Amino acid sequence: MNTITTTALLEQLSWRYATKQFDAARKIPGEIWAAIERALVLTPSSFGLQPWKFVVVSDPAVKKSLVASSWNQSQPADCSHHVVFAARRSLDEVEIDRFLDSIVAARGGARADLAGYRGMMAGFAAKAAKEGWAKEWAIRQVYIALGNFMTSCAVLGVDACPMEGILPDQYDRILGLEGTDFTTVVACAAGYRAADDKYAKLPKVRYAAADVIQHV
Amino acid sequence: MNTITTTALLEQLSWRYATKQFDAARKIPGEIWAAIERALVLTPSSFGLQPWKFVVVSDPAVKKSLVASSWNQSQPADCSHHVVFAARRSLDEVEIDRFLDSIVAARGGARADLAGYRGMMAGFAAKAAKEGWAKEWAIRQVYIALGNFMTSCAVLGVDACPMEGILPDQYDRILGLEGTDFTTVVACAAGYRAADDKYAKLPKVRYAAADVIQHV
Repeated sequence: MNTITTTALLEQLSWRYATKQFDAARKIPGEIWAAIERALVLTPSSFGLQPWKFVVVSDPAVKKSLVASSWNQSQPADCSHHVVFAARRSLDEVEIDRFLDSIVAARGGARADLAGYRGMMAGFAAKAAKEGWAKEWAIRQVYIALGNFMTSCAVLGVDACPMEGILPDQYDRILGLEGTDFTTVVACAAGYRAADDKYAKLPKVRYAAADVIQHV
Repeated sequence: MNTITTTALLEQLSWRYATKQFDAARKIPGEIWAAIERALVLTPSSFGLQPWKFVVVSDPAVKKSLVASSWNQSQPADCSHHVVFAARRSLDEVEIDRFLDSIVAARGGARADLAGYRGMMAGFAAKAAKEGWAKEWAIRQVYIALGNFMTSCAVLGVDACPMEGILPDQYDRILGLEGTDFTTVVACAAGYRAADDKYAKLPKVRYAAADVIQHV
């Protein structure tokens, strides 16, 4: 166990904000970025299926080209690493078997022991396909990753700006996701705030705890 | 700044797992739980609109009654605090104005200065209502909160088990959410793992970084 104090957690969650202006000259150090990527990989998901792809854009030209697909917001260009969160478009038994293979690889044991788990996931996938919510299910999981990412950045002292206002079709084309199993959902720019970002100084706006938390 | 080390973050994200068996005798200390609730309140959201309600269930009888609505999984009964993540069913201008009032309360200034922001959110809400995705938008935000919650619990050394396999209608009825602006989406039990939970000892299963992270 290597826990942190409640003070550290809350100070960092209060310190973070949706960064409007990044310092384009500051890059996230390699050791910090490697940990953030590892945190992304460790994100929990439904059944453990990890129906996502994280595209980490650090190439300056590509970052710049994403600005026009982000309602001309400057964060993709000025941040250090621009992460595009993509969701799996559909879930089939091929993917379920790939996941089960990864369980056996990590834990040993026989594939036959996972027959019950396989049946449950296959039934879930068939229902999702029939009712048309497989992609939305994957998108929800991607948002867990987004939440984990923003909190992980915050505790490590890295600034971030979640960006839902992007054009997924254009992102898919630029990043080569067209025709693949994954499609762009949301992005999050990461890096360091510019010294003159006036939004950094504004008090955080949140509803009172009594308005959003109900005790039973 | 009160940052933590990459080692602490990754150790805690590796330590966590979807807890199957909680130690029913162990409760989360008040100071820790207060911080977790504060972390929930601080969750980032689209436009900052916080379209959610978090129902914290600690009453033993209610916790027990939720087991039958959770496919008879024991976590709601045995955990310390069972958190139900509920999403706002729709988004209207009344809610947008309430949010704008909270901005003025936190930051001062005149409501008139926020006219542009109001127009953007009102246009968004109208589009969401017309196209029928207001609730799904809110649900995605709730999943950010779920991700933040699980990571916050992990770094504080609190175990958690996300539960999508619940019956939202039954949860809504038990928790009194029927007929309100909010509806149950997902739950997450929090507390401490039982010493004999065999799942705690299993190696974590995740795809290799090369399979889920693409560098551009």
